[in-house]
Amino acid sequence: MDSTLAEFDLIERIRRRVSSRGDVILGIGDDAALLQVPAGMQLVVAMDTLNSGVHFPPETAPAEIGWKALAVNLSDLAAMGALPAWCTLSLSLPAADAGFVDGFLDGFLALAAQYEIALVGGDTTRGPLSVCVAVHGFVEPGMALRRDGARVGDEVWISATPGDAAGALAQWQAGDAIDPALRARLDRPTPRVSLGRALRGIATSCIDVSDGVLADLGHACKASAVGARVDVDALPASTALRASFDIDARRLLQATGGDDYELCFTAPARLHAAVIEAASAHVPVTCIGRILDGAGVTPVDAAGDAWRSAMAGYRHFD
Amino acid sequence: MDSTLAEFDLIERIRRRVSSRGDVILGIGDDAALLQVPAGMQLVVAMDTLNSGVHFPPETAPAEIGWKALAVNLSDLAAMGALPAWCTLSLSLPAADAGFVDGFLDGFLALAAQYEIALVGGDTTRGPLSVCVAVHGFVEPGMALRRDGARVGDEVWISATPGDAAGALAQWQAGDAIDPALRARLDRPTPRVSLGRALRGIATSCIDVSDGVLADLGHACKASAVGARVDVDALPASTALRASFDIDARRLLQATGGDDYELCFTAPARLHAAVIEAASAHVPVTCIGRILDGAGVTPVDAAGDAWRSAMAGYRHFD
Repeated sequence: MDSTLAEFDLIERIRRRVSSRGDVILGIGDDAALLQVPAGMQLVVAMDTLNSGVHFPPETAPAEIGWKALAVNLSDLAAMGALPAWCTLSLSLPAADAGFVDGFLDGFLALAAQYEIALVGGDTTRGPLSVCVAVHGFVEPGMALRRDGARVGDEVWISATPGDAAGALAQWQAGDAIDPALRARLDRPTPRVSLGRALRGIATSCIDVSDGVLADLGHACKASAVGARVDVDALPASTALRASFDIDARRLLQATGGDDYELCFTAPARLHAAVIEAASAHVPVTCIGRILDGAGVTPVDAAGDAWRSAMAGYRHFD
Repeated sequence: MDSTLAEFDLIERIRRRVSSRGDVILGIGDDAALLQVPAGMQLVVAMDTLNSGVHFPPETAPAEIGWKALAVNLSDLAAMGALPAWCTLSLSLPAADAGFVDGFLDGFLALAAQYEIALVGGDTTRGPLSVCVAVHGFVEPGMALRRDGARVGDEVWISATPGDAAGALAQWQAGDAIDPALRARLDRPTPRVSLGRALRGIATSCIDVSDGVLADLGHACKASAVGARVDVDALPASTALRASFDIDARRLLQATGGDDYELCFTAPARLHAAVIEAASAHVPVTCIGRILDGAGVTPVDAAGDAWRSAMAGYRHFD
């Protein structure tokens, strides 16, 4: 868009560093990218924006912004069981700041390289700091993990340890020292791409956790026209989270904290062992509840009593 | 991304109004869209952002912003000779303003309907007003119009009447009354999709004019490793532009004004009649120059003398 020399300089700076792939016929440098979707595969597309001061503190290091901007998008592909392939990047910057772009690319391209994703287009514009990324992947017809497939009797699962990113955010907001392990989970979330791929044909529904386990499971329940019961005491906690927060604060972070980008998914109870087996090569998964008739997500404690956070009170998720 | 109720409300507000297509397996409402690219076609992807105060004045009507955000992206597909199919939208708003979203959609969806494009995903976030759109289309293998195909001896063509949008902008910046015909060209540019499709197999290179005819032709020349000579006096002018500006101002607007989103393309001289025939059902096209050995774009007047704008002096475009 911008006709300034600076824009061409920035785009050239980006273009020099990107990798390509065999299915990219034409990448950065023309009006649009030309791409070849493999025969017989469906295209999966997600797009998410991160705005400075809203989705990350303004003082966040450029490399963390770059990583996270791609990670949250890859997490959407992971939640569909899709194999990532390409991305486009629209970067709005207050000024043509080569140092920022270099740092941003360090994080962005490090994650892209992990999944062999090619950056194939987009633009750089002048404006308040904002990063919009679109990601493209493939999935076999009928194999996508959708939100609307949860069935009564299914078990509810979560990957890894939810609440870590929210724990780092809570420490930051309180002005406390931030635990490095928690901070890494906030700044460099791991999109659960390989887990999503492994769950094809096993999970009945899947969603990535950006708003909190209970809230995001609530979205899947609503799409599936079912309810759920979640044992909040079954939510797995990281060592760092245990060390940093008492049990009440921890439970609240685990149940309602977002930004970890773990996968919350459902699978038939008869596939319990198959779920553990499928996930084993990738990331630990924990069964935390059941899908029920009805609507909304009901959090309970280990005794089966309704869970009310000592810190936030009772909240219904639907 | 945002966990506020307002975001879900806005997304639902958008979802209720969008049309679907047979090749959209899953649209708005899941982590990602599921799409089916037609067998044997290549995927064409472009992404452009418009920021308030940079790409449009803050007081621009929401419907014009919506139209333009999609139009500039469709123009990129047009310049590739691609058939548009789907788009995703990331809308950053300072506040969840239903009235803005409704107006925005009026413009955005009116243009989407013209090309039967489905809005399949994206997000709404809090932040300074910014619109990022990604568009997806198809093109037959080997038939895309690229920037790098111009050959020595080709004729250079432009669609319609460049400079109109820049004329409106010049009037606005001068505080003058804006000619309605020029204003419509600035606020609601027409992406030349059908012209782009008609030029497959005829044009050797193509680019959409966002930075000005001479500058954008310069990009194509650079990509093609050729030069060009453009007869500035041959640039076609609209009635409104003639009525509003004297010849010096008009020439400068026509040669260097962007934002009309016309197509500048090259074709072999022997296909001169074929170009006019192919374009005839869509939009007038005018031959304005020749591709030459060398580099850069040399503007000349009708007598063949080097053109120097009386207003901006001489500038070399490469």
